Amino acid sequence: MSDGARREELLARRRAALGPAYRHFYEDPVEVVRGEGTRLYDADGIEYLDAYNNVPCVGHSNPRVVAAIAEQAARLNTHTRYLAEPILAYSERLLASLGAPLGHVMFTCSGSEAVDVALRLARFETGRAGVVATANAYHGTTTASAEVSPSLGPAVAPGPTVRLIAAPSPEATDAEAEGRRMAAHLAAAVADLEAAGHGFAAFVCDSIFSSDGIRPGPVGLLRPLAEEVRRQGGLFVADEVQTGFARTGEEMWGFRRHGIEPDLVTLGKPMGNGMPIAATAARADLLDRFGRETRFFSTFGGNSVSIAAATAVLDEIEAQDLQQNALTVGTYLLAGLTALAHRSPHLANPRGAGLFLAVDIPDPDATGTPARLLEALRDRRVLAGLTGPAADTLKIRPPLVFSQTDADRLLAALDQALADLS
Amino acid sequence: MSDGARREELLARRRAALGPAYRHFYEDPVEVVRGEGTRLYDADGIEYLDAYNNVPCVGHSNPRVVAAIAEQAARLNTHTRYLAEPILAYSERLLASLGAPLGHVMFTCSGSEAVDVALRLARFETGRAGVVATANAYHGTTTASAEVSPSLGPAVAPGPTVRLIAAPSPEATDAEAEGRRMAAHLAAAVADLEAAGHGFAAFVCDSIFSSDGIRPGPVGLLRPLAEEVRRQGGLFVADEVQTGFARTGEEMWGFRRHGIEPDLVTLGKPMGNGMPIAATAARADLLDRFGRETRFFSTFGGNSVSIAAATAVLDEIEAQDLQQNALTVGTYLLAGLTALAHRSPHLANPRGAGLFLAVDIPDPDATGTPARLLEALRDRRVLAGLTGPAADTLKIRPPLVFSQTDADRLLAALDQALADLS
Repeated sequence: MSDGARREELLARRRAALGPAYRHFYEDPVEVVRGEGTRLYDADGIEYLDAYNNVPCVGHSNPRVVAAIAEQAARLNTHTRYLAEPILAYSERLLASLGAPLGHVMFTCSGSEAVDVALRLARFETGRAGVVATANAYHGTTTASAEVSPSLGPAVAPGPTVRLIAAPSPEATDAEAEGRRMAAHLAAAVADLEAAGHGFAAFVCDSIFSSDGIRPGPVGLLRPLAEEVRRQGGLFVADEVQTGFARTGEEMWGFRRHGIEPDLVTLGKPMGNGMPIAATAARADLLDRFGRETRFFSTFGGNSVSIAAATAVLDEIEAQDLQQNALTVGTYLLAGLTALAHRSPHLANPRGAGLFLAVDIPDPDATGTPARLLEALRDRRVLAGLTGPAADTLKIRPPLVFSQTDADRLLAALDQALADLS
Repeated sequence: MSDGARREELLARRRAALGPAYRHFYEDPVEVVRGEGTRLYDADGIEYLDAYNNVPCVGHSNPRVVAAIAEQAARLNTHTRYLAEPILAYSERLLASLGAPLGHVMFTCSGSEAVDVALRLARFETGRAGVVATANAYHGTTTASAEVSPSLGPAVAPGPTVRLIAAPSPEATDAEAEGRRMAAHLAAAVADLEAAGHGFAAFVCDSIFSSDGIRPGPVGLLRPLAEEVRRQGGLFVADEVQTGFARTGEEMWGFRRHGIEPDLVTLGKPMGNGMPIAATAARADLLDRFGRETRFFSTFGGNSVSIAAATAVLDEIEAQDLQQNALTVGTYLLAGLTALAHRSPHLANPRGAGLFLAVDIPDPDATGTPARLLEALRDRRVLAGLTGPAADTLKIRPPLVFSQTDADRLLAALDQALADLS
């Protein structure tokens, strides 16, 4: 069977079995069969540079993580209703890193569940239903997390108790002014929630506004917003599923770049380097009444193997100093993107924090330039993504082990791909 | 440090890190560190017979599953936006087993997410919000699944769009009559939902009514109920998280024991023998509009390693004929429980389907007999559980590899534990 015929067959089987709600990357999607470090390999053995996947943060098939998974799976994989020391050691390490006022952590399997539990806690604690999110946010796929995920489209979000405010402006440079502007929008949204009888429970955002188009700055803008959330009697949920675990380089956690202390923090994606594990950290007092009046248990949340993987991830981030690598290589890559954007009319507004980078791809005549650039990059064996409300922002968010050599390869491929567009 | 001091220290660290919403089994919980087949071992090397855990369905640390996990983790662990053959092969096998009219399957990480997605689909498709569940059901920990989980307590469920009906009576023997009785209750609940303006989207139950106290029969009672659900314009969600994957012995799926064709089926717990994987199977047409108007993606849902584990689980169920084992050993165990119940005033109403068994522990003077019996079993190195609204039903739900010798050990331990109570 030719490669094309095989892909056609797989696509047909995929449509039949998984149905029409599943999407794939690229018109002609890649059949990935192997990964190592920053590289992915397709069924024909062709090597791709992975500039997209944040989940395998310490590298695809990281040997330390693989060994931890294999050893723990061979010994025991069970749940949190028995006693176990490893989950306690991991939780203590995580809480020490997150810092006050976050006192407890509860484990789930996915970022969607982590956000869902955070919203449950916020609504339970405040006794109010209203939640504010940003205009093209993505926070998950459960009912409650999808309701605050307008990037899923108007058929799904915002839910009836949800109000949306604009993400930070890409042009903003004054953190205080931009934060105050967002705070004013938040106050208006809260007033609307109160008028509708829902009240205000929480504001949720990821600190880099990823699906809103990636807005890493200006640094500090979340401070006036967090103050307004508190003034309005709501809780601040920092969704660190994408920005957490050293991604942004300057700090271990995205919210800390902005100097705020969230009430609830959600963690996921890179936490187990691909093993399903996620968590919700909470101000200790937020669990007092919840813990008395109900209980929390997730069969797979915090299972022995996921905890082993997550522990190995923290070990690897520290041992390889991947936070520093994210900062160094991210800064280098941003300089390279900036240089390319100076030369090409197809790139604008390069920006980023650590290894979470973006550059807009203007498409004034709506000829599909962003998708064509992404496919051209793929033809040059570099995998990246698109984001933003119009899917016209190139998203570069590679494993944290991305090297300067990888960055050079990405920049060269992008340079060539841009030439194709001309 | 003495064992007691170590457990005290771990319990204190647990309260500090995980907070008050987490519960543990037993007053003096077991620190489990190793598992093999039907055995668990604590930190002192003491061996326990596991008569409780359904997740490690093909046995703790099953070699085939462990090898599949280790090999796949070393090769690749990625998501469903690239092409991959193994997830398609697994999905086709699953759908063939589930049978018509279930046409598509969507992967998540936990049973909670599977139920949540099923309710999302049901509400999306019908355009109505109301859901009916049973009086002490448990379906999950996300906002939407917790709302249909009254066993979490009145602070959580039922949610505003949820109505509850009684589970099957433990005394019922006539399936048709009991099914019609439940159907009448369902019709009343639907009328109430319609009067409240919510309309009726779905009925959800697990076919053995596990947290309602385990009601395996009478077989066929779900048929009149399913007919009534359809007549009322709702969808039938069969929650197979606990009853699926050969557990009940007679069939691969619990709903099939009752001869019904559900519109949505949720799968979880035993699916990956502990690897987080879950799924929602749906009538194909239920995804037409959903697939057009939004999309579905779960970062970890259907990841390469979880699919490898799930495939190995199906292989092992077939290779060891564990459905037959569940039936044979379950029948043997039920006979043994029945004999014990004849002799002991502390046991009543032994019942079960395959390796999902229950026996009530009457506690007329509220002296805590059920909990004392559970602790006495634990002292004899047998782990079981309690269920039901009053937690006075002994739940026996071991790995499917439970042997007749294991059953004899359990029965002997139970016999001795009962003697302790006298």
